[in-house]
Amino acid sequence: MSFAYTTQRILEIVGDDAEFSGEYIGEIAGIASLAEAMAGDLSFLGNPKYRDAVASSAASVLLLPRDYTETPKAGQLQIKLDNPSYALALLCRDMERSLQPLPAPGVHPTAFIDVDAIVSPAASIGPFCCIGKGAVVGAAVLEAHVCVGKYANVGDESHLFSQVVIGDYCVIGERNRLHPGCVIGSDGYGYEFIDGAHQRVPQIGNVVTEADVDVGANTAIDRARFGSTVIGAGTKIDNLVQIAHNVRIGKHCLIIGQSGISGSTELGNGVVLAGQAGVAGHLKIGDGAMIAGGAGVPHSLEPNAKVRGPTGEPMMLYNRIMVLQRRLPDLFKRFDKLEKSVESLPECGTIE
Amino acid sequence: MSFAYTTQRILEIVGDDAEFSGEYIGEIAGIASLAEAMAGDLSFLGNPKYRDAVASSAASVLLLPRDYTETPKAGQLQIKLDNPSYALALLCRDMERSLQPLPAPGVHPTAFIDVDAIVSPAASIGPFCCIGKGAVVGAAVLEAHVCVGKYANVGDESHLFSQVVIGDYCVIGERNRLHPGCVIGSDGYGYEFIDGAHQRVPQIGNVVTEADVDVGANTAIDRARFGSTVIGAGTKIDNLVQIAHNVRIGKHCLIIGQSGISGSTELGNGVVLAGQAGVAGHLKIGDGAMIAGGAGVPHSLEPNAKVRGPTGEPMMLYNRIMVLQRRLPDLFKRFDKLEKSVESLPECGTIE
Amino acid sequence: MSFAYTTQRILEIVGDDAEFSGEYIGEIAGIASLAEAMAGDLSFLGNPKYRDAVASSAASVLLLPRDYTETPKAGQLQIKLDNPSYALALLCRDMERSLQPLPAPGVHPTAFIDVDAIVSPAASIGPFCCIGKGAVVGAAVLEAHVCVGKYANVGDESHLFSQVVIGDYCVIGERNRLHPGCVIGSDGYGYEFIDGAHQRVPQIGNVVTEADVDVGANTAIDRARFGSTVIGAGTKIDNLVQIAHNVRIGKHCLIIGQSGISGSTELGNGVVLAGQAGVAGHLKIGDGAMIAGGAGVPHSLEPNAKVRGPTGEPMMLYNRIMVLQRRLPDLFKRFDKLEKSVESLPECGTIE
Repeated sequence: MSFAYTTQRILEIVGDDAEFSGEYIGEIAGIASLAEAMAGDLSFLGNPKYRDAVASSAASVLLLPRDYTETPKAGQLQIKLDNPSYALALLCRDMERSLQPLPAPGVHPTAFIDVDAIVSPAASIGPFCCIGKGAVVGAAVLEAHVCVGKYANVGDESHLFSQVVIGDYCVIGERNRLHPGCVIGSDGYGYEFIDGAHQRVPQIGNVVTEADVDVGANTAIDRARFGSTVIGAGTKIDNLVQIAHNVRIGKHCLIIGQSGISGSTELGNGVVLAGQAGVAGHLKIGDGAMIAGGAGVPHSLEPNAKVRGPTGEPMMLYNRIMVLQRRLPDLFKRFDKLEKSVESLPECGTIE
Repeated sequence: MSFAYTTQRILEIVGDDAEFSGEYIGEIAGIASLAEAMAGDLSFLGNPKYRDAVASSAASVLLLPRDYTETPKAGQLQIKLDNPSYALALLCRDMERSLQPLPAPGVHPTAFIDVDAIVSPAASIGPFCCIGKGAVVGAAVLEAHVCVGKYANVGDESHLFSQVVIGDYCVIGERNRLHPGCVIGSDGYGYEFIDGAHQRVPQIGNVVTEADVDVGANTAIDRARFGSTVIGAGTKIDNLVQIAHNVRIGKHCLIIGQSGISGSTELGNGVVLAGQAGVAGHLKIGDGAMIAGGAGVPHSLEPNAKVRGPTGEPMMLYNRIMVLQRRLPDLFKRFDKLEKSVESLPECGTIE
Repeated sequence: MSFAYTTQRILEIVGDDAEFSGEYIGEIAGIASLAEAMAGDLSFLGNPKYRDAVASSAASVLLLPRDYTETPKAGQLQIKLDNPSYALALLCRDMERSLQPLPAPGVHPTAFIDVDAIVSPAASIGPFCCIGKGAVVGAAVLEAHVCVGKYANVGDESHLFSQVVIGDYCVIGERNRLHPGCVIGSDGYGYEFIDGAHQRVPQIGNVVTEADVDVGANTAIDRARFGSTVIGAGTKIDNLVQIAHNVRIGKHCLIIGQSGISGSTELGNGVVLAGQAGVAGHLKIGDGAMIAGGAGVPHSLEPNAKVRGPTGEPMMLYNRIMVLQRRLPDLFKRFDKLEKSVESLPECGTIE
């Protein structure tokens, strides 16, 4: 995984309004944090709190904000910009394209495509992919071992990594990025207890992901009982997340690793569900709500609510409770003492 | 994913003892909740609390309980039955069969079957399946990319969705439904710390699932250290669940998304483990116990116990504690005030 | 899954310094716990607390500590050793080798290997494996449907079970054991909110696993934003674990089922993360720290710290708090009573 960027090339990417200080002759062969960078690396100051780490960084090229005024070391080039983080992102994007170029269009000879499927000539279909009857695949990239079920649809410019499974009738929007092992369109979990056994309730709906949705590795999104489980445009789902049947997620939500959403719950737009959080079923979570890591949410939330803890308490209250909890051992002791003091008062008589 | 049902066909399915009110001419092309249904949809009243939503529903056909007495709108057909939910399930089952018909028996030309495996002629083996030496596959459906390990066994009428992995020597019962990406028979997690390193303890047992077991997408069930990890008949496991080695789960349990059961724990019959719950190892969980979402259970449970919270408290106690927790900030304030009052009493002297 | 061991063969494996008592004629066809063993089984006393279960065990052969003095039943052979658990492990290892022999070197005819990949002639490449351009695979075993990405590296003696995905540029050390469905090298989860949408931050780093790392079924380890996500030598990761980008895990850690580690967090050596625990991002967890099951850790930890609960409290404190929590209903009652008593004191006047 090596790349070599001349300072010339870096300047082309970050734009021509940068200011310079110092000089570095040679190529950049790595990117690293200020503390970890070595000679030959590029580093950057994105968060002001690391400002002190710039002076001691061994990086050869530094992306810095315009108000940084210390002088560079010998052999070190400072590039000053309005937004060093954005400049870094531009650089990384360029490197990503060179490290992981999109595969050329075409169908790998080992892939199996049903005769009744329609695959865009601009699509790239990798080894051992399997595309079912009636499926429609746009100008997308399917890496190895991807399964696209019957009558499923994959939008243009989507990228399905290895071993993604798209269930029958599911619809993947444009520019989705689906990571390895994620499953879109498994059966919803629905049973009725009849005659002493759990009878499966048929799940005849599908999953619809709108444009620009990302889904993490080994995440599972269940098909609806009927109708659709919907993931709104621009929503980004992390690894190992569970999305149950008939959930409807709004636009631009962040659903972070190992969190889970139970059946029929609706999330508004811009909701953030942090890692390992869980939301019960049949709830409405308002726009912009933030659910802290590990929280359990048993009730609906107003827009912009911020909750934490296993019963989804308001964040400020929960934090306060956590502080007071640590004082419980002391409180119990003080209480016992106070109780005795009061009991010993002649006026109080026996406090039973 | 379209279907079209005439009212005639619907009546054939729901049975001939239904009562009618109103009339709808045309076909039914969707099923939706009362609130979401549009003209051309069928809807239903399964839960009495939604009774008020019937009158405003735009559904063209409604499945209702016999005691519903409001008159239908123009162009709306009411079908009244003893059990609208059951009638709906019958309808959905019929639709499921037409939307997702079972594939015909036969082996896809891209599948690889070891010469020493035995596959029923009634089995359907999908693209890129891999069936190992000594494996026995009954009249089951294996969709694409399914791996059946050496000497493993798959029972009749089981349905293995894409990318299911069955480990060597594991035994899958009849009528199992295994969702995409689930792994049955990965090594148990067992190490002994010897000479400064974790030495793997060999895991030479297997996994046995009895009849009518469902396993969700990307769930993992580990093989036993020796003997078997057992999933009892009729137990339904959701997505992303972790079942460790030597766990024994009874019959008709519900193990819901992202829950986990540690090694050698035994669950009785009819246990419910809600989402993201965890049970420690080497415990016994009695028949009918219910473990709430997100709970952590560090001790064995009596039959029909109901527990909640990170230390598996009795549900009533935990709910009470949660209410009182919210009152801790107030309690601390009141306590400080009371302490001062008592200190100020001349009789009390100094309360240290 | 049958095996048959003569007592002669068992003695060869457990070593020649064992002492005997009693006699069993026949073969051993199973291993089971003391309580579950039947005639023809071997059992063992590994944990002194089960000593009383030895006398009632129906096992035909028993591995016991040297200080066990009860006489065997008729037809029962006792083998006494310094370390019965270790002897059992030796036996299991032997059985494992015979039950699950390593496949012979060679490339299955259905595998696809890019012409620019380098695969050791000692490697065993299973059905439908896919090895990308520039990848290097040592003397490893790849079972069915394994994907090795472009320019990735797999070390000697590693074992990749079915449907493992190794992302582009990732490096798998020697003697790794990667269980089915695990994903090494999915994109890190990084976005910046620009112009009303979450823009993906390119993830151009990789994952590096050192020697003797195990990774469980359906676990996900994300590639670094840049640089490497690192799993230290001898670390054992269980099923369904989430390891975010730029995490660095030290040597000989135990990362147990469904736990998760957020981005850029560093774990020292010998850290234990129990089931369903979570660690926030950008933290440092000291050597030997132990994080209890279900804990949430929002702050860095000193070496050998032991924490528990949703806010990562010191274990002793948390346990104390949990005990006191159960006494909250009583405390509130006592407090109300005490408050009233004090209010009723003539000296106290009104306590508002």
